[in-house]
Amino acid sequence: MKIRIGIAGYGNLGRGVEYAAEKAKDTQLVALFTRRDPASLKTRTGIPVYSYSDVHNHKNDIDVLIVCGGSAKDLPVQTPDLARSFNVIDSFDTHADIPSHFDRVDKACRDAGHIGIISCGWDPGLFSLSRLYGESILPDGTDYTFWGRGISQGHSDAIRQIKGVKDARQYTNPVPSALEAVRNGETPAFTARDKHTRECYVVAEPWADKNEIEKEIKNMPNYFSDYDTTVTFITEEEMKQNHSRLPHGGVVIRSGRTGKDDENRHVIEFKLDLDSNPEFTSSVLVAYARAAYRMHSEGISGAKTVFDIPPSYLHPDTPESQRKRLL
Amino acid sequence: MKIRIGIAGYGNLGRGVEYAAEKAKDTQLVALFTRRDPASLKTRTGIPVYSYSDVHNHKNDIDVLIVCGGSAKDLPVQTPDLARSFNVIDSFDTHADIPSHFDRVDKACRDAGHIGIISCGWDPGLFSLSRLYGESILPDGTDYTFWGRGISQGHSDAIRQIKGVKDARQYTNPVPSALEAVRNGETPAFTARDKHTRECYVVAEPWADKNEIEKEIKNMPNYFSDYDTTVTFITEEEMKQNHSRLPHGGVVIRSGRTGKDDENRHVIEFKLDLDSNPEFTSSVLVAYARAAYRMHSEGISGAKTVFDIPPSYLHPDTPESQRKRLL
Repeated sequence: MKIRIGIAGYGNLGRGVEYAAEKAKDTQLVALFTRRDPASLKTRTGIPVYSYSDVHNHKNDIDVLIVCGGSAKDLPVQTPDLARSFNVIDSFDTHADIPSHFDRVDKACRDAGHIGIISCGWDPGLFSLSRLYGESILPDGTDYTFWGRGISQGHSDAIRQIKGVKDARQYTNPVPSALEAVRNGETPAFTARDKHTRECYVVAEPWADKNEIEKEIKNMPNYFSDYDTTVTFITEEEMKQNHSRLPHGGVVIRSGRTGKDDENRHVIEFKLDLDSNPEFTSSVLVAYARAAYRMHSEGISGAKTVFDIPPSYLHPDTPESQRKRLL
Repeated sequence: MKIRIGIAGYGNLGRGVEYAAEKAKDTQLVALFTRRDPASLKTRTGIPVYSYSDVHNHKNDIDVLIVCGGSAKDLPVQTPDLARSFNVIDSFDTHADIPSHFDRVDKACRDAGHIGIISCGWDPGLFSLSRLYGESILPDGTDYTFWGRGISQGHSDAIRQIKGVKDARQYTNPVPSALEAVRNGETPAFTARDKHTRECYVVAEPWADKNEIEKEIKNMPNYFSDYDTTVTFITEEEMKQNHSRLPHGGVVIRSGRTGKDDENRHVIEFKLDLDSNPEFTSSVLVAYARAAYRMHSEGISGAKTVFDIPPSYLHPDTPESQRKRLL
């Protein structure tokens, strides 16, 4: 009996879940829900496609529904609503709103006896786990999160809003010297500029003033003005050929001290180097969907995060086999 | 109300637990048990020292007892015995014997209603967690564990058994080119020699034949003959000055593929760089002691490993604060 997985939403993330669920040996994709016309969607694996408006009618056919909407508008509404009929899991990533999202999902889950895992992916997600393990083990220490090299969707969108910009991609890069200092156990206080640079590739409209665009990008508050930003104008062909993937990654480092006179230094580093941000996030979602299924089978309900899930629940093998092979 | 911690055994690990428990804001050291004469021990923090033979008389004074004996002879006997009176935690690291150790501790814990966390530290421990998270998230992949640069106690001891050797330290080093290949997403099949080198520092007796010692080290089966091994003879003073610490560390890398045609590669890396192997292990033990206390307070009993512990239980703050600050 495989775990029956449903997908709500078929963007980059939903497609990633489709690939990831194929790789898992104990999951089975049973339904995809879309707000578009179901007949218009061609899925890779041929799973049945239904209208999102019918989703609650499928409550008995699905063990875990993976909610693949956006954090800004979709998930705050969809995840609590879907939790009335399903065990759910999402990748809600608006850090400041996690507590209120948690509360809404928790209430819906408890009322219905379901599990709802929120904010699951790599940041929030695996990076959060690294921060928590690091602080727990080395309480006398400092931690640093670096992002990149990777495409920031939000910053790319911000550039696209500028008049005369036809297309844009923004890569966030860690500053190598800052990363090295932290790896060596130093604990400097960094400004935003010290830690990351922003590298922009822009396709301009033929009539646009490139100097004007560059100035507008570099002076954009919050997004770019606090960083060393480079702007490179390229053609549409170059954009398509060299910048059409969605790589990302980053590093979480915890640096701490122990010993009689704090003489011993320890550095814990967790690093991700990802060719496809959405596909990796989807892979994390599928592993946690397995955990949601297992916890629900044990009668557990309510909202959960990666902090609440025993690692063992993520792996398809039995606990005995895990201990023998992986411990 | 702080968590009352006891320590059984006052070697490198026991002393490390003493330092680590001082750093934790919610633990209190209440007793140290030794097989030596208690009056002969001077502890850093002045915690009361008792004879190991009296340990069971203290069953009501201690919330979690951290068992700091050796894996070869002490822990297989001590941990199950102590579990009759205490929640216990150990760093049992003989990989092949983990299943039988687990079963013995599990039986003792269940009979007494206690929690027993075994094989807790960094390998087994945090490295095991990385292997499990990696396999769970990227099922189509390969993983690699590299150790070092660090002192291998077992290999150092093996050299010390050779006739004419007065003292010895052996560093295990990852081979940089192998590590780089794996970091770049390659998935080669390595021999032992491809992955690690062994670097030996030896103090010889004045009468000893150094060529003979070097030959004997390099030809030692299992320990050295399968590796590129270097032997350097040094004075006792040099040994004391340059090789008296116990650094260690290593890297666990999971490399996997996703996507329509497996075209996207992802690399997950977990790395430790530790000035003191025993003090870092002790820091892990104290964090998991907190988890043992909390799980026991909820009525959970039996043997557990790092795979069974929800990460949230390791951190002193409330789940709300963890989500707000670390997720």
